[in-house]
Order: sequence, then structure tokens, then C-alpha cells
Amino acid sequence: MNTTVEELRAAVEAAHAAFGKARAADPETRAGWLEAVAAALEQDAGTLVQIAGRETHLGSPRLDGELKRSVFQLRLFAEELRRGEHLDATIDHADAEWGMGPRPDLRRFNVPLGVVGVFGASNFPFAFSVMGGDSASALAAGCAVVHKAHEGHPDLAERTAGTVIDALDAAGAPAGLFSLVTGRPAAEALVDHPLVKAVGFTGSTAVGRALFDRAAARPEPIPFYGELGGINAVFVTEHAWSVRRDEILRGYAGSFTMGMGQFCTKPGLLFVPAGQTEELRKVLSEALAGFAPSRLLTERLHEGFRDAVGQVEEHTGVDVLLEGDFAPMPRPTLLRTTADAVRKDPALLRQEMFGPASLVVEYGDQSELAGLAGLLEGQLTTTLQADPEDDVAELTARLADISGRVLWNGWPTGVTVSYAQHHGGPYPATTSNTTSVGTAAIRRFLRPVAYQSFPADRLPEPVQDANPWRIPQRVDGTWRRPEQAS
Amino acid sequence: MNTTVEELRAAVEAAHAAFGKARAADPETRAGWLEAVAAALEQDAGTLVQIAGRETHLGSPRLDGELKRSVFQLRLFAEELRRGEHLDATIDHADAEWGMGPRPDLRRFNVPLGVVGVFGASNFPFAFSVMGGDSASALAAGCAVVHKAHEGHPDLAERTAGTVIDALDAAGAPAGLFSLVTGRPAAEALVDHPLVKAVGFTGSTAVGRALFDRAAARPEPIPFYGELGGINAVFVTEHAWSVRRDEILRGYAGSFTMGMGQFCTKPGLLFVPAGQTEELRKVLSEALAGFAPSRLLTERLHEGFRDAVGQVEEHTGVDVLLEGDFAPMPRPTLLRTTADAVRKDPALLRQEMFGPASLVVEYGDQSELAGLAGLLEGQLTTTLQADPEDDVAELTARLADISGRVLWNGWPTGVTVSYAQHHGGPYPATTSNTTSVGTAAIRRFLRPVAYQSFPADRLPEPVQDANPWRIPQRVDGTWRRPEQAS
Repeated sequence: MNTTVEELRAAVEAAHAAFGKARAADPETRAGWLEAVAAALEQDAGTLVQIAGRETHLGSPRLDGELKRSVFQLRLFAEELRRGEHLDATIDHADAEWGMGPRPDLRRFNVPLGVVGVFGASNFPFAFSVMGGDSASALAAGCAVVHKAHEGHPDLAERTAGTVIDALDAAGAPAGLFSLVTGRPAAEALVDHPLVKAVGFTGSTAVGRALFDRAAARPEPIPFYGELGGINAVFVTEHAWSVRRDEILRGYAGSFTMGMGQFCTKPGLLFVPAGQTEELRKVLSEALAGFAPSRLLTERLHEGFRDAVGQVEEHTGVDVLLEGDFAPMPRPTLLRTTADAVRKDPALLRQEMFGPASLVVEYGDQSELAGLAGLLEGQLTTTLQADPEDDVAELTARLADISGRVLWNGWPTGVTVSYAQHHGGPYPATTSNTTSVGTAAIRRFLRPVAYQSFPADRLPEPVQDANPWRIPQRVDGTWRRPEQAS
Repeated sequence: MNTTVEELRAAVEAAHAAFGKARAADPETRAGWLEAVAAALEQDAGTLVQIAGRETHLGSPRLDGELKRSVFQLRLFAEELRRGEHLDATIDHADAEWGMGPRPDLRRFNVPLGVVGVFGASNFPFAFSVMGGDSASALAAGCAVVHKAHEGHPDLAERTAGTVIDALDAAGAPAGLFSLVTGRPAAEALVDHPLVKAVGFTGSTAVGRALFDRAAARPEPIPFYGELGGINAVFVTEHAWSVRRDEILRGYAGSFTMGMGQFCTKPGLLFVPAGQTEELRKVLSEALAGFAPSRLLTERLHEGFRDAVGQVEEHTGVDVLLEGDFAPMPRPTLLRTTADAVRKDPALLRQEMFGPASLVVEYGDQSELAGLAGLLEGQLTTTLQADPEDDVAELTARLADISGRVLWNGWPTGVTVSYAQHHGGPYPATTSNTTSVGTAAIRRFLRPVAYQSFPADRLPEPVQDANPWRIPQRVDGTWRRPEQAS
């Protein structure tokens, strides 16, 4: 049974009321809520992973790891709240000598936006779903969350939401701070609701763009933080190819088939020197010989995968390097083309094949690579397979232009949750210049407010001179950090 | 002669080429460019202020101050570049023991977006025009700027742009880094151009929303940082009113007529206790007795002002408190209504009257104020006139919900350029959660890029362990600031 539009409205209103109550919570209290959710998910892991396995066809080791990651993320965000970095507390004392004329006392910090709508993804039933990065960062920011469940794992969504809601309740958080809704009518009403102040989304470009347009067209437009996936091109230099071709190809085979190729960071393009097509075929074939396929996440994704591979195959100059299939548990497909063909038809570089397939592009000379990179749309990641003696400065600069994370001799699948992580990139990788992974994700759900000439006893804690929360404060231009652990 | 669309394209392409060259500049070099522009504007001040006076009818003292402010801003931004705060450099070293599994070496910092389109405003011919806050912050971020001149001061725009371009050239900046365009066809083509990666805008809600929609509808949507003005409601408590009524009214009279009321921070609403209408009229009349009106910025604004005042006057329950006029040099108009009337007709609170006019709302009881604040749309500022014994916690919280800057016993006109400034607010005050004034404005024109597992000698300066630029770096979660001046 889908959530009705009326039920959605009630959930948003309850979330708004809970947001109002939760605002009084200090960082320690709010961090405690996140930690309570983490502990509850950990305790319920057995059941959660069992349901997830049945609904997503992802194996237990992967699901165990993903849940562990989600729990870790909540605890890392709790720690970040205690540090108070996200508040960006800034204090300018009154200054009669300020260069442009006398300056009043002015103090700014970040406050939560309000109710946030979060759309779960199918491919990460924990890490980008009910209590994934968007929900965790919105709660950490101090927002309330109304989460739209992905239809790919309805039972898991319900079980996870129940665990989260019970944990928040037991920890003393106000009722309604987190809730779950389902179905398209509720999804659209969620984006439209005037009390919803931002949306986090992970999913396809088509759905993401439609919702982005919807958010922008509201009477009061709101930020739409969409992660729409990508191609994740990998560039192999001539030298790297000559020295460690087989190792690179084995890494590639492992990365594009990981999780049945259903990662937004799957390497969908591999640029290699031309002239060794047979060796390519042989090494990749061997690397994938032991591969045990499993079912894709949903029927719909399976159909979309077959269609996307078919569309790429139809382009002039594309042939099959390794023939896979589209059985219920599909074997991987590798396609091959040339730099000339993609220069004539750059659309070839812009078709995501969500599933176990990738396209190898053979180039004639390494000097072509920067130009080829310029044909790509925005990417979540780009990767260089290069060696210390390679001159790839120009290519590296182009890759930074078109992507949010550039890797050196690694593979883009696997996205750590840390302080420096950036999971985002120029459109269509994401719809904003922010990240949906790592501690910086919390900032998306905050906005600054400045207080001018307020009496000391009326100022909010983050910008009091006494600094009761012991957070970093930038005072008259200089950061002061009271209790910096090293 | 307006810029043709072809000329606009050439300007954007030249800007893009200049952006590519300018990226190699270190903070010291880029800071030097900003300082060269500051010095050139200072040197040309006599001529610039003379032209501005003729085109805008704003007096010399005001224009001198505004130019001084713009020059100061460039120098403050140069200093901020040297500090490197805006780079948000973050280094996570590889960590085999990281809680969710081994973490690779990951380093993130902010890079400039590319070419930025900036739309100048009519009401601040220096501070929000050719080399105003948007242009200065985009250049500081490392972007190239194509500036669309406001038609209200074409000669000043041309003269300022010439001074800026000559200064950049003499300082060694690449040609095309800054350019000026004029007219609507170029304006629209600027927002549409695929090489333009963000837009800064200050102006009316109608024009701003149309351009926001245009930016969002692009194949690749881009951030549109629009500052669309506001109402800037002021709330006077009963106690403050009883103790210092006349002083408050004199402050109000000065603030809403400053610059002929043509500030986006003009107090357009004043909530006061009911029952002293005659005293109100008398004190305000005296306060405005010596007021010397001048012409408004443009003919079009003059017409818009007359229409807006007429529209507010037509609402039921509105009467004239102090009769002004709409002569070429208009005398101020004050309207009056009641809390009951605005509760019946909240649209009354949402009509900006851009010019020397404001609306006084009489309330019956102080406890009504939080509810009345809830009827307002997003505001750049809100102001409390209150006394130490007043219980205004709930009202203050509501004001922080609806505005970007909350003032205590001050007046919203006058926006200092500093570290803690926030000039923005919920829509329709601005179209984003960012500021267009203060050092934080620079962040709007940056995006993060992460480098994973890069060899030390391939890393960009901001994220090198050796920290050659001596900037703040967050290393494994902890900020390190090498040369912090206090």
C-alpha cells in the first residue's frame, strides 16, 4: 500500500513539528541520537541483512560490509557534531577602525534547513537508502527527514525505518523526526510540500532530472542534491600499458563486475592503446572466467541494462569484445570501439550501462587522451592508470575539470566515508557542487544566519564568546579551536 | 550599442581561455591582481564618482563611501586568498585501521568553477555592480567574469570596466579574465552559454526569478546566486516603544529614506503597538521635515515605485500615515495598517516598495508578533527593537527562520563586509543559501575535487604534505594552521 498524499502531508507536518522541538538539542544530545540509531541497526543486522539479501540478490559479505559502513557513518557524523566544524561559527567583534567604516558586532553560524525529503536508491540498500548518507547527514545537520523508500526493497525499507524510529524514540528524540513514505504520489508531493526545504536523491538521470526540475519550479525553489550516477572513465597510459597490462585488465574486470556492475562508480569506459585487441580479449576472458553472476537488483533494472547495452552496440564502430548475455543472472558484456569512432560520435561516451558491462576504447597515441576527456560529460570519478615517468599533467587537469574525484592507479568502486571524501561531480554526475558521502555532506542541509549587535546573553551558544559548546570559532578573522585532538 | 550574441560568445570563449591560463596563478599572484584592481579604482575615483553622480543621482558622500567599500572588499578578499581558508584543504592519509575498512589516501580542496556571469544592480553602482561583490568574489575564487552592465549607469559601467581591464592587464593577468557586455540578448545568451558555470545576480524578484528558471532549465543546470531584495521587517516590543518611541521612529525614518529607499535592506515594515497613531504621525513628520529628496535611480524604478505604493494603498485597511508624492524628486510616503488587516490579507506584507516608502503595522499585543512574523516571506534581514527585560526568545527564533541576518536595536541598511557577514535569506530574499557579501561569498564560485592515491609529486599545492602555500589543512580530521596571525 502506497502512502497517500494526505498521509504524506501528515508526515511532513509531524516532521516539521519534530524539527521545531529537536532544535533545542545540543550537539551531545543530537550525537547521542545518531549513535542510538547506529547501535540499533547493528543489533538488528542479522534480520536486516537477511531481508536485504532476499530483496536485492546482493550477497551477505557485501551486505554485511554495507551495513557496517552505514553504522560507521552515523558514528563518524556524531563525532563531527561534537567537534562542531559544520557550524562554521564566525564572530566579528565591533570594530570602529574597520577599513570600510565602523563595523558592528556580527556573528554567524549555520542552522538546519528544516524538513528534508530523501529518496533512497536501489543499489545500496543500506548505504544510500533509509539510513544512508543523505538521511544521516540531514539528521546530523539538525533537520527532520521524510524518507521515500525505493520500491526495490520495500520490506527492508520498512524494517530499517522501524528500527530507526524505535531507536530515536528510545533515545528521547521527538516523534516524527524520521518517517518513511512509499510510492510515486507521495514522492511528488514530498518534493512539492512548502515545509520541505531540501531534497537528497540518489538514482537515475531521468528520474533525478525530473525531480530537480520539479524542485526548481516550486513557488519557493529548494536545493535538490541529486546524485545521478555516471560513466567513470579510466585512462591507461602507454607506459603503464606496456609494463602492467594484465594487472590493469584484471583490476578493471574486478571493478566493473563488482556488485554486478550496479555501482554509480563502476568504470564504464577504459581507454587503452590500440593494437592488442586479441590480448585484451584473452586476459579479460581469463579474468572473468571464474565470475559467478547473480540476479540484478530489480526486473526493471535488468530490462534497462539490456536496452542500454543494445543501444551502445548499435553505434557505428562498436563491436563485441567479450560476449555476455542477458539471462536472469547475466554474464558480463564487454564492448570495444576506437578513439576515431567516439570522436565522430561522442554520444557513445555518454550512455551509462547500469549492470555488468563496460566499453573499451582503443586510442592511437597518448596525446589524444586530453582531447578525448574533453568529450565526456561530468563524471563522479575519473581514473589514471599511469607510471611515475608519465607526463600526464594536462590530462590530470582535464580530469579534475570533469569529475569530482580523480584516482591514481586505483579503481573507482569503493567510496570511503571520511573527511576528505568528495562524491559528486559536474552535471549529470550530480545536480549540485556538493558531496553525498563524507562529513562534508552535512553542510548541504544547513544555512547561515548572522546576528548583529545582540546582547551577550541573547546569543545562541555557537557564537557566544564563552563558547560553551567548545567548538571552533573564527574570531575577527582567526580560527580558534579550544580542544583540538591530534 | 548592445553587445550582440556573437560578441557575447566571443567574450565567454575569451574568458574561458583566460580562466585556463589564470589557474596556474598561486594565491599571492591572484591576490596581487585584486589589489591592482583596487588601486586602479582608487586612482580613478574622481572620474568614477563624477560619472556615477550624473547617472544615478546619488550624492557624492554616498558614492565616495560606496567606492571605498568596493576597494576595501577587493583588498579583504586578497588577504583571504593569502590565508587560503576558501580552499578548504583536507587531507586523509591512508589508514588500514579506518573503522569501515581500509581507507586510501584521499585529499580534497576547492577549485574554481570556470566562467561566471555577473549581473550588476542599479542601486549600488559600485558595490553591487561592475567590480562589486559578485565580480570580486568570483575573481577571488579563480574564476573569469563576464559582467552584464546595468542599463541604469552605462557610462559608469564602461569606465569602471576599462579601469579594471587595464589594471588586470598591467598586473599580468591573462586577457579576457574580465569583460563587460550590455543588453538583454547578451544577458540571456550569457545565462545559456555552456561554458558559463554559475551566475551572480542582484536585482528584482521578477527578473531574478526568470533568470533563475533559465539557469535551471539548461541542459546542464548551473547555480544561480540571485539576491532579489526584500521587505526587512522591524519589530518593536511594547517596552522598547514605551521607553524610547521617538528615538526608534527617528532611526526608522532615517533608515527607510536612506539612499531614497533604494536599498535591498530598506526597512519596509515596522510593527509597533497600536493606539498612538497621532504621535507616530507627529514624530515621523518631524523626523522627515528636513529631508531633501533627490531623483530615483531610473525612470523605470520611479514608475515601479509609484505603482507599488499604489498597490499597497489599495488594500483594505491601509491608510496614509504621512503623505508623500511621486514628483521627479519624491517626498517619502508612509502607510499604516493593523495586525488584523494583515492577518486577513498577508499579501500586504509581501509587496516591496522600492523607493522612499514603508508600511507601519499596529499590533494589539506583543504576543501576536511571532505569529505575524510567520506570515512573512523570506527576508534578507529582520530587526528587533527590544530591551533587556523583554522575553522575545520565540520571536527571535521565528526571525532566524525567515531571514539571513537578525539585528538587535539597529537598522538593516548598512551591510559591512567582513568574515561573519551573511547577506542572503530564504526565498525570495535570495535563490540560494549563500551570501553575496563578505568573505564567505567567495565559496559560491568553487567546487571540491578529491585526489585519491596520488603520488606526492603529482599533488596540487593545497593538498601537499609539505604545504608550500602555508594554508590551513585539515589533516586526518584535525585542522592545522601554519601561520595564524591573531
